[in-house]
Amino acid sequence: MRQSNLFTKTSRNVPSDEISRNAVLLIKGGFIHKEMAGAYSYLPLGLRVVEKIKAIIKEEMDAIGGQEILLASLQGPDLWQKNNRWDDKQVDIWFKDKGGKVGFAWSHEEPMIEMASHHIESYKDLPVFVYQFQNKFRNEPRAKSGLLRTREFIMKDLYSFTATEKDLDAFYEKCAKAYEKIFKRVGIGEKTYRTFASGGVFTKYSHEFQTLSEAGEDTIYLDSKKRIAVNKEVYTPEVAKSLGLDKKNLVEAKSIEVGNIFKFGTVYSEKLGLKYKNKEGKEKPVFLGSYGIGIGRLMATAVELFCDTSGIIWPEGIAPFKVHLIELGKDKGKKIYADLIKAGIEVLYDDRDASAGEKFKDADLLGIPWRVVVSAKTKEKAEIKRRNAKKVELLSINEAIRKLI
Amino acid sequence: MRQSNLFTKTSRNVPSDEISRNAVLLIKGGFIHKEMAGAYSYLPLGLRVVEKIKAIIKEEMDAIGGQEILLASLQGPDLWQKNNRWDDKQVDIWFKDKGGKVGFAWSHEEPMIEMASHHIESYKDLPVFVYQFQNKFRNEPRAKSGLLRTREFIMKDLYSFTATEKDLDAFYEKCAKAYEKIFKRVGIGEKTYRTFASGGVFTKYSHEFQTLSEAGEDTIYLDSKKRIAVNKEVYTPEVAKSLGLDKKNLVEAKSIEVGNIFKFGTVYSEKLGLKYKNKEGKEKPVFLGSYGIGIGRLMATAVELFCDTSGIIWPEGIAPFKVHLIELGKDKGKKIYADLIKAGIEVLYDDRDASAGEKFKDADLLGIPWRVVVSAKTKEKAEIKRRNAKKVELLSINEAIRKLI
Repeated sequence: MRQSNLFTKTSRNVPSDEISRNAVLLIKGGFIHKEMAGAYSYLPLGLRVVEKIKAIIKEEMDAIGGQEILLASLQGPDLWQKNNRWDDKQVDIWFKDKGGKVGFAWSHEEPMIEMASHHIESYKDLPVFVYQFQNKFRNEPRAKSGLLRTREFIMKDLYSFTATEKDLDAFYEKCAKAYEKIFKRVGIGEKTYRTFASGGVFTKYSHEFQTLSEAGEDTIYLDSKKRIAVNKEVYTPEVAKSLGLDKKNLVEAKSIEVGNIFKFGTVYSEKLGLKYKNKEGKEKPVFLGSYGIGIGRLMATAVELFCDTSGIIWPEGIAPFKVHLIELGKDKGKKIYADLIKAGIEVLYDDRDASAGEKFKDADLLGIPWRVVVSAKTKEKAEIKRRNAKKVELLSINEAIRKLI
Repeated sequence: MRQSNLFTKTSRNVPSDEISRNAVLLIKGGFIHKEMAGAYSYLPLGLRVVEKIKAIIKEEMDAIGGQEILLASLQGPDLWQKNNRWDDKQVDIWFKDKGGKVGFAWSHEEPMIEMASHHIESYKDLPVFVYQFQNKFRNEPRAKSGLLRTREFIMKDLYSFTATEKDLDAFYEKCAKAYEKIFKRVGIGEKTYRTFASGGVFTKYSHEFQTLSEAGEDTIYLDSKKRIAVNKEVYTPEVAKSLGLDKKNLVEAKSIEVGNIFKFGTVYSEKLGLKYKNKEGKEKPVFLGSYGIGIGRLMATAVELFCDTSGIIWPEGIAPFKVHLIELGKDKGKKIYADLIKAGIEVLYDDRDASAGEKFKDADLLGIPWRVVVSAKTKEKAEIKRRNAKKVELLSINEAIRKLI
């Protein structure tokens, strides 16, 4: 894409109420726009990151048998009352229309179960794994962490419906592995730990995926050698012992919850009447698991982890473009731009009539992984460097393309 | 996709409050699920149609210079009050949270203008064309037409920001042409007419794209030879005359509004303060146009237009799959399925353990454009027919693939 066509601009101005680093950098770079506290819009560069993240997640969810759907946001009381989650006293983050008869889904377990009940009758119909990318609306009182905690956010939520607890357990582990792949591909794998967290009526623990970051709102105890962590909320010496963890190997750390997986067992299915007929023709409740990842939060986590004082340093897997081509001198980059496009490389081509200083400053802020500079000085060659490296290589166009492919 | 893996099933049961043909067929086929009056969820087959429609629209919007973004749904009063569209007395379809301080966007002109004001400063920054696929929430009192009128729906809305009225007019015509391409590719082009509709403070008319259908809620007067129509709402003999239409060539018809395009001129920009500096450094208000297409409504329109008593007949451009491969006899279709996939053809492979009658009945209901049947009777060949044709051809696998590519 030619940068002269991109309608967004970098900016030094950030809304005065914006205190989180991820939002500040993303707003300055023109990736997002702040609508109000806890509500952000995605501009072209930001939406490209969102789509990259979604594509990775979709691939991994499809690979474990997920089928994509899209549930409505609008919700009514009848269904949720059956599970005692409609009342504002039970769930205090509902957005509800004036009359109180229509709510906006802050989660989708209830409607997923209701929908599934129309398609699941017999053990032959199981297992079923469905997922969606859909907005969640949550009237969060503390929306101060930029994209880490918002009142409106795109979530990938997958639900597993299985006939037995054994099938639930098997899929749960499969999904945990898929999550590890996702976080690795997004670029935050190394800093992300499967973490024991509070369970519920069905299991002692659920699991969160926690990414180490000072920007995080969570605190975990971490055995980095064993790659096991425990959320402070559930930590006791007994818990540590039961998990085979030695207190002296545990380090306390701030972290961001980038995903969670949860077994509901048959608790919700029983309340909402989701049953199947087993081989003997006997009615049994379906086992439910739920598996979530917030897309914006993942994007914000990557920014928090990979930035410096000059701007963002996108991991390649989710960068809006792979290459930032900067020309110093009109049309200097035209040929290599065409060659890069032909080679199938995603390029942002800074063809603007701007100073070298301005272009480099913007490039640092935008954080595209590879920078290619062409100027009178480079002649028939190009300077290649990584966003976060000092080393610059002077390569021929062909060498440059081979390196970037 | 193997149909045995598809979690949805066809059904004879439809919610008792569902009276619209499009919703009845789509629910029976397992394309959608009804959440409540005016709120539907998309299941795998339905979401595939949605994605096909979105892909067509995206291509055509990108082709005329559109840049995709995604605005927040959550809206606050300050911005909308400037344009006098926050008050429930002015706009009676708002969904608003209890306190009345947070609303859910039923349109996005105001936040688009506000966002654009952060990126448009000078005439050099114009024109800007941005679009999104985003939910709109409208508390419609009369949500009885299935996907034709819902309280929550995905809309493609594009906004043009131009320096001059001339540029607005030029883009408006360009977008109208793009809309014609979209409706043609979706399969409803022939029955869709550009229609004069009510304008507003800036222009005498806006334009709607109206598709002839008895299921429509609109009435138009149509000159089918000239391919010009006038919405009954604005029709007078003087209007007809001014458009060069002869009353005796006009036919009254029911129709569905599948798109609309609207010039706001500088009215909204002036109220909301969206200005640019012209060449002389003088501040001028930006010209605004807005261009909408409802995705679900488009899908429903295709169903209303292309169906028979047995089910849907999807136009190829938006069909969930191109080919419905039906095997009669276990694994009979396995080889041709692999061959079709290899040839890059999207296939739903009915590998279920079900009767021929059941399979054909479901295939008619689902409405995939091409049906391929393999059985003991067809031996090494396959029977090919279109969903809406009587004629069956017996072809070799290679001939069949060549025909379907």
